[in-house]
Amino acid sequence: MSLAFFNGEFLPTESVVIPIDERGHQFGDGVYEVIKVYDGKPFLMREHLVRLENSAKAIRLEMPYSVEQLEDLIHEGLTRAELRDAQVYLQITRGIAVRLHAFPDAPPSVSMTFRPSKSLTEEVFNAGVKVALLDDERWLNCYIKSLNLLPNVLAKQTAADRGCFEAVLVRDGYVTEGSSTNAYAVKDGVVYTHPANKRILHGITRAAVLQVAAELGIEVREELYTPEFLLNADEAFLTSTTAEVLAITQVDDTVIGTGKPGPIVRKLHAKFRELIG
Amino acid sequence: MSLAFFNGEFLPTESVVIPIDERGHQFGDGVYEVIKVYDGKPFLMREHLVRLENSAKAIRLEMPYSVEQLEDLIHEGLTRAELRDAQVYLQITRGIAVRLHAFPDAPPSVSMTFRPSKSLTEEVFNAGVKVALLDDERWLNCYIKSLNLLPNVLAKQTAADRGCFEAVLVRDGYVTEGSSTNAYAVKDGVVYTHPANKRILHGITRAAVLQVAAELGIEVREELYTPEFLLNADEAFLTSTTAEVLAITQVDDTVIGTGKPGPIVRKLHAKFRELIG
Repeated sequence: MSLAFFNGEFLPTESVVIPIDERGHQFGDGVYEVIKVYDGKPFLMREHLVRLENSAKAIRLEMPYSVEQLEDLIHEGLTRAELRDAQVYLQITRGIAVRLHAFPDAPPSVSMTFRPSKSLTEEVFNAGVKVALLDDERWLNCYIKSLNLLPNVLAKQTAADRGCFEAVLVRDGYVTEGSSTNAYAVKDGVVYTHPANKRILHGITRAAVLQVAAELGIEVREELYTPEFLLNADEAFLTSTTAEVLAITQVDDTVIGTGKPGPIVRKLHAKFRELIG
Repeated sequence: MSLAFFNGEFLPTESVVIPIDERGHQFGDGVYEVIKVYDGKPFLMREHLVRLENSAKAIRLEMPYSVEQLEDLIHEGLTRAELRDAQVYLQITRGIAVRLHAFPDAPPSVSMTFRPSKSLTEEVFNAGVKVALLDDERWLNCYIKSLNLLPNVLAKQTAADRGCFEAVLVRDGYVTEGSSTNAYAVKDGVVYTHPANKRILHGITRAAVLQVAAELGIEVREELYTPEFLLNADEAFLTSTTAEVLAITQVDDTVIGTGKPGPIVRKLHAKFRELIG
């Protein structure tokens, strides 16, 4: 079943628990994580929670729980929800206070949902996906996993309207990342991806895949690359908690490589799956 | 007293009414307005509601109520709250749905709060305020009055930490606007302000003040200007629904003009107050 958590209490997901003056609701003043649970084991949970701490620090939000306490709450939620394969959504905001921009004198709010896993089918992984190139109109601190996701929502929907799985974003002439994924181009056996600076989210799956690439002896260059480079790549792919390692087989009207997941993407995905166990 | 409204119901502001899966709460996927009410009369209400419609259109959000219906709800809320001088906050989000970036198949949510007016004191208007120059790190569609306000929150707090009333933002070498205000510099009797393009909010008070300036025969140039230009201005000011026309007397360590509200700011403010009636 599905379950929610809000400020100390486990309750049904559809419960009304938030007053209007919640800073998540009125300012997007918070940070979040999505953690996938495979067979009862939250995957890379520690890494996600450390990133949550870093995001909170970047917006000067004090964490109300330690990483260890959050781990305990996540395990408790999974047990209560009786879920083995699940998706945990966890968000922390600057709390409930009468609306004023500056920081309130209020304790942070913590909310979570525990839901059955939304996994892509093997057909999707085997076929790869089409993406749309769109302008990256987001703010300048995309390394913070914040609740300010309107540009991501709009990009994702525009891509969906064009029959695409994802929007791949372009800022100042270079590919940054997808609206909810990191993006990669492969040329002559080398994987290219945007450096992990302030312009992209430092994906937990991205870090794991770069590690996997190193183990496989596949060279990775964290360098800026252009949309033209992507269009002329031998292979391309996305990574995220839910997309794992997902081949891009078409960018707008341009077929990438053979139009099927290539050897490097397949190797990376297979090896990544070994991590999941 | 204070009062809230959520999806058709009037209720106490502190009521819990929102489930965790609200898109305002998880994505900031919505738009809003703040309307000031003077002696029972919502000031420039029609203009605010038309802008709300424009913001909604820009994010492809269907308005669940017409402008006329929202006007009726606002009047009803003010009557129920028994408020003559009030601040109405009104927000519309893409509704309640299990979390996925793309648009949900759900009706929009409408929430409002009705609260006693938060006005600046006459002392503040007479003294003017200090502001801090900060980098404009927001997204590229600041003309949309969206709920993605985290950069504004962070800028406002940084300014407050420096003893400043407001942050005045600078993008690509030019002053854009304040974190919750529009910004202006006055030089040789001419008022300069950033053009109303995608980089700033098209303030309702801004439009009213430009109209007031025209009536007073004060020249206004909607042009880009630099931080240096602002520092060397004869006068400077902010406008917003709550700030009305508010003199900037200091920018970081630099005193502007005489360090007191100058003649043009005072004229504009006086004439603007006549509109309030």
